[in-house]
Amino acid sequence: MGDRTVITTQVAIMGAGPAGLMLSHLLHQAGIESTVVEIRSREEISATIRAGILEAGSVDLLVNSGVDNVLRNGHEHEGTEFRVNGVGHRIDFKGLVGQSVWLYPQNDVFDDLAARREADGGDVRYSCSNTDVYDLLGTPKVYFTDADGADFELRAQILVGADGSRSYCRHQIPEASRKTYFNAYPFAWFGILTEAPRSSPELIYANSAHGFALISQRTDTVQRMYFQCDPTTNPADWTDEQVWEQLRLRVNGNGFELKEGPITDKVVLPFRSFVQAPMRHGNLFLAGDAAHTVPPTGAKGLNLALHDVKLLFESLDSYFKSGSTALIDTYSDRALDRVWKAQYFSYWMTTLLHTVPSEENHDFFRARQLGELRSLLESEHGRAYIAECYTGWQGK
Amino acid sequence: MGDRTVITTQVAIMGAGPAGLMLSHLLHQAGIESTVVEIRSREEISATIRAGILEAGSVDLLVNSGVDNVLRNGHEHEGTEFRVNGVGHRIDFKGLVGQSVWLYPQNDVFDDLAARREADGGDVRYSCSNTDVYDLLGTPKVYFTDADGADFELRAQILVGADGSRSYCRHQIPEASRKTYFNAYPFAWFGILTEAPRSSPELIYANSAHGFALISQRTDTVQRMYFQCDPTTNPADWTDEQVWEQLRLRVNGNGFELKEGPITDKVVLPFRSFVQAPMRHGNLFLAGDAAHTVPPTGAKGLNLALHDVKLLFESLDSYFKSGSTALIDTYSDRALDRVWKAQYFSYWMTTLLHTVPSEENHDFFRARQLGELRSLLESEHGRAYIAECYTGWQGK
Repeated sequence: MGDRTVITTQVAIMGAGPAGLMLSHLLHQAGIESTVVEIRSREEISATIRAGILEAGSVDLLVNSGVDNVLRNGHEHEGTEFRVNGVGHRIDFKGLVGQSVWLYPQNDVFDDLAARREADGGDVRYSCSNTDVYDLLGTPKVYFTDADGADFELRAQILVGADGSRSYCRHQIPEASRKTYFNAYPFAWFGILTEAPRSSPELIYANSAHGFALISQRTDTVQRMYFQCDPTTNPADWTDEQVWEQLRLRVNGNGFELKEGPITDKVVLPFRSFVQAPMRHGNLFLAGDAAHTVPPTGAKGLNLALHDVKLLFESLDSYFKSGSTALIDTYSDRALDRVWKAQYFSYWMTTLLHTVPSEENHDFFRARQLGELRSLLESEHGRAYIAECYTGWQGK
Repeated sequence: MGDRTVITTQVAIMGAGPAGLMLSHLLHQAGIESTVVEIRSREEISATIRAGILEAGSVDLLVNSGVDNVLRNGHEHEGTEFRVNGVGHRIDFKGLVGQSVWLYPQNDVFDDLAARREADGGDVRYSCSNTDVYDLLGTPKVYFTDADGADFELRAQILVGADGSRSYCRHQIPEASRKTYFNAYPFAWFGILTEAPRSSPELIYANSAHGFALISQRTDTVQRMYFQCDPTTNPADWTDEQVWEQLRLRVNGNGFELKEGPITDKVVLPFRSFVQAPMRHGNLFLAGDAAHTVPPTGAKGLNLALHDVKLLFESLDSYFKSGSTALIDTYSDRALDRVWKAQYFSYWMTTLLHTVPSEENHDFFRARQLGELRSLLESEHGRAYIAECYTGWQGK
């Protein structure tokens, strides 16, 4: 075993996804040092296709911290379409609650933050290995081997676990000090990228007897679409024509047709709800997917991570500036308040829009679901409530 | 077998509950003859304790037809309280959507309609036996033995099955011509009458880790309360003190205490969702509980029955006046549109407010439920949407 170089910082951050980099960026602007340790390469993270919808509050967080490519390269969506059995119903976010969302893919958020951290001389170590964490209740330490094979011991006052849905950090909290919440779903999402023009200017959330579909966009020439599938589906078994047939069945109708093109990427996305609480153990704080996973239907995953980061940054800033533990002591409860609203909303959008295969009371659930969709979509109050949740519970 | 006296009418109505009598009353006012056949005695129906909340549209239907005791003896409720873990949140129906509901028990509605039908010389035959129906696709016939033991054959152009949740009529529709929808729930309601003053001026819908409770009222000196229980509960096994203990656990707190008194009635109410569709077969039309049952949480049962009756009356009136079948041909679809909204709302209120015993993912569901309650109750749009559904989707 070679020599282990000791380095020190104020905040050690495990994970250089959008949550970890955003926190490191905000801390830097407040004059607080951090080091980010990440096992993946920068290229691998950048190439990971993920969510694409930013709440207004997420856009504000980025833009107010000077990371504002979203305003130039993103697309403001003032509403969305709920399409039920081929009939579209627009939910006018802007008109109903005065807020929009922005279509701006998560990998672009990552690229912007990674470039900004690099430009600001941030200490972000990609492609690390042999990572481990110690002394969560005292002065936390991170052991890691960097991309060049050098061994380090990173000492920090605060350790942040922003290491994603397969978080190592969250498992270091003793079992007696954590509680987990879980829900499985009887379906998954089949996601594709296709080389085609936009089928619509805004997202389409489609419900039909054939199941759910989501029509999203990426660029002028590349589109993202999803449809509900069996969780055991192997995407390699599906021809392009079979994919388009499912999407047509669920979305086309009443003069609307999807614009089709070659499919360049096929993936089956898992579908589950997960929370670990509390989001703090001693000097370890969890943020983002490390503490919670939502099903993708409500587009909450990245937004929830950025909301955690906003609260955690304010808490750490207060702690380092004043020594007061008031905010870091309440971080977990305050973060979980929104986590559970987002868990609820994601679960609700999922059950509202997906069909449940072959339950005994399948007919009851389908008719009830159509009754719910009618009741909500015919009602300005119902549409406004969906808009409020989807755009991010403004001001709360 | 004795002689069977043949009598004729335009509309034969099976069942003299509020739905059957309301329809007979409206038909009478429009100059259309009807005969109502009922197996229970008037006294038995009058003594059956049932729901107590009337939507604004139900009150309008009664009052506009001259049955207006509700305005003198009922209580207008301009809102209700959702009480979560002992903390109250008022939903201001009047302020949010400009509508109220009225507390006026179903047996009072029955008494008013029975008295009015009697005063108007209506042909309502209580305490019948040996009832049967024939020729649904032609000229419907009802056989029955009246309270005096005389046998009749009632011939009518239209037969209405308003014979309640154990409807005989709905089973006379051939299986190939009907579809049923069903959902069971893992709990029931324990209902009591207590001799005590009102605990609150409006209904309280209480959610707590101990389960659901509903605090309702009857008069200045008699109150109605319910709490979620196991469906196998035998009310005779419960002492008054055990009942009050459950109610206190679920409702009391933060300075609020239930006003307790002697319990004069204990009953366990079943809990299920049921729909039979279509609501027409030839010249047989179903209305109210005969076609659908909702769980009681949303207070929709009686209101849905009166809504069916309103649509059916308008349809029959048009048919008898003009000979046009346009409205009777669409009655079932139009009625079912609201039936499924009410089924959804009743299911939703149930899952929002009750706790589900011992599921594998119980912790997830409880935390998700509290997230939903927070999201809804903190939001003016959420409260307005609940108010709109509860007061009856005004104008729709």
